[in-house]
Amino acid sequence: MKGVILGLQPRAHLVDITHEIPAGDIRAGAFALAASHGFFPRGTVHVAVVDPGVGSGRRAIAVQTVNYFFVGPDNGVLSLALAREKIKAVHQITNEQLFLHPVSNTFHGRDVFAPVAANLSKGLPLGKVGASIKEFVKLSSPEPQRTANSIKGEIAYIDRFGNAITNIDNTKLASLAEGLREIIFRGKRLCELQPFYQAVPHRKPVAVPVSSGFLELALNGGSAAKKFNLRVGQAVIVRGKPH
Amino acid sequence: MKGVILGLQPRAHLVDITHEIPAGDIRAGAFALAASHGFFPRGTVHVAVVDPGVGSGRRAIAVQTVNYFFVGPDNGVLSLALAREKIKAVHQITNEQLFLHPVSNTFHGRDVFAPVAANLSKGLPLGKVGASIKEFVKLSSPEPQRTANSIKGEIAYIDRFGNAITNIDNTKLASLAEGLREIIFRGKRLCELQPFYQAVPHRKPVAVPVSSGFLELALNGGSAAKKFNLRVGQAVIVRGKPH
Amino acid sequence: MKGVILGLQPRAHLVDITHEIPAGDIRAGAFALAASHGFFPRGTVHVAVVDPGVGSGRRAIAVQTVNYFFVGPDNGVLSLALAREKIKAVHQITNEQLFLHPVSNTFHGRDVFAPVAANLSKGLPLGKVGASIKEFVKLSSPEPQRTANSIKGEIAYIDRFGNAITNIDNTKLASLAEGLREIIFRGKRLCELQPFYQAVPHRKPVAVPVSSGFLELALNGGSAAKKFNLRVGQAVIVRGKPH
Repeated sequence: MKGVILGLQPRAHLVDITHEIPAGDIRAGAFALAASHGFFPRGTVHVAVVDPGVGSGRRAIAVQTVNYFFVGPDNGVLSLALAREKIKAVHQITNEQLFLHPVSNTFHGRDVFAPVAANLSKGLPLGKVGASIKEFVKLSSPEPQRTANSIKGEIAYIDRFGNAITNIDNTKLASLAEGLREIIFRGKRLCELQPFYQAVPHRKPVAVPVSSGFLELALNGGSAAKKFNLRVGQAVIVRGKPH
Repeated sequence: MKGVILGLQPRAHLVDITHEIPAGDIRAGAFALAASHGFFPRGTVHVAVVDPGVGSGRRAIAVQTVNYFFVGPDNGVLSLALAREKIKAVHQITNEQLFLHPVSNTFHGRDVFAPVAANLSKGLPLGKVGASIKEFVKLSSPEPQRTANSIKGEIAYIDRFGNAITNIDNTKLASLAEGLREIIFRGKRLCELQPFYQAVPHRKPVAVPVSSGFLELALNGGSAAKKFNLRVGQAVIVRGKPH
Repeated sequence: MKGVILGLQPRAHLVDITHEIPAGDIRAGAFALAASHGFFPRGTVHVAVVDPGVGSGRRAIAVQTVNYFFVGPDNGVLSLALAREKIKAVHQITNEQLFLHPVSNTFHGRDVFAPVAANLSKGLPLGKVGASIKEFVKLSSPEPQRTANSIKGEIAYIDRFGNAITNIDNTKLASLAEGLREIIFRGKRLCELQPFYQAVPHRKPVAVPVSSGFLELALNGGSAAKKFNLRVGQAVIVRGKPH
């Protein structure tokens, strides 16, 4: 992909966000993109190629937002990032004149997305990639449930440090009763909410509102995922405790 | 290596092809280079440093082809890529004036190949690296065997997804009898030839002519290597079935 | 981090030294930086973010040496590299005008170190990051012990190939009695000192003065760490044997 892009746009800055997405894990790719894309300069072209359906009927899309372009398969991998952006236009990628030929059935990253991204970075109008479309695939992301004094969410992503990032938005935590806030996991108190990892002793669990914008379960100096056998989808409850 | 190159050529574009080559695995490095080098722009200097014999008597070489330069140890790691290129000249690297001093016995990538590659990218004539030579080490790659209605090859490389890439060239598949083509592995029918991964149900095996130019055994949504205990060198037969 | 840097300095060359530092392993990060930083061009800004204490009281520092800038947490991760450089000034990073806001408690790499590094690369005087300080955290690195005919050191770092790099400086080896030099490990002779890996048969152990500047225990064609169950901190003795 990088060779193809540099062939079309020798002045491109190529940045890998991560080499840690498990094969075919669309949700993990979508999460990594959503957590990092907004820190790149205006005009960046984001390409995501977690693409287990390559060669099948799944569509390819290019999206323009107020700040960025996004290019990838229409399988949801772009959707968590797009949910945080102001979308201007979504187009299906169909213009074969832009593709690398022969187009393989197994690596559209190289043959379709890379040349389209390079061309967009050179100023190609979005309309040239194909027709405008109205809908695109969005990953379902269950909304956390609110009660009088708690928020019930779930684990959305486990990173390479063994930290478990939930779908509970940091900005919602302030609405809980002030004072001690504790995390309930598997029906029992697991740990407290703290502002940073080392607020608890070494190898103790802690919940921290982290830099991705969401609440995270972590182990100070270790892997929470390993110690507590954490899995994506498990329920996590934050409970406010009045003074 | 990157620091050394940028010190000599601050305008270099540095691209890592992969971080997944097992230590000392010359064949895996050769395969990764052969599968990707041709997608880079004309004039690219390809450096490959899978180099278990570093410090011993093995030679270092620089090769100019119609489109590229190649720099690395003369142990075969360049040979699969060179088999796909039109070679203009092969020179042994001996000009110590180009090296970083003191030259270590354990990391010629940094002390020899990086400065030579940087100098070639700046226009140094190939003849300045050392004398022209006629032969270089080539990895043996057994030719697949053809019968009336089948091609017998072997697994050449297993990638990080657990896909097994064979030495059977995609372009040879067309010559088999039309209709269903099936894969024989360990004496039994394993799966069919299909144009893309998701042509078979989730977690079923499939053989796909992939983007590297060779036939690949894969598992839709999983690791074929793990499920079938695949190893480099195992025989794979494609059999054409007449209508 | 890369997005933040490119937003401030679009002409930056971004180079990853490694993706292999275990989570929170300050000593491994310090070792990787010390082994590689000196090969980068004069003026390079080195940023290291192995930062398990992020969000707690640990300080952040920026250091100017004769050749480079260094930016990171004041936890020792910079100290092994700084021990090899001529320090001109050390400043605590406190100028919040340089930071990305809101500053998270979990990723100062992105919010503090990246923008400070980008600004230093653009010519910001070091004094603008905060006040000058006199001391910074240094990792303890036990000095090898010398006897009449031996040097006793320890394993300092194990790399991804399973090589064990010791704290025994290559330049000290010459002072041992000439002739055969052998390595004593767990009270027994493990192997000999050799100039390169393939000086011993396949899968045999060997000690080599490697390119990082230190003596390394390795296995020709395999992982010494796995075969001999090596760990950081284990004692390693080099013994000179008179003719």
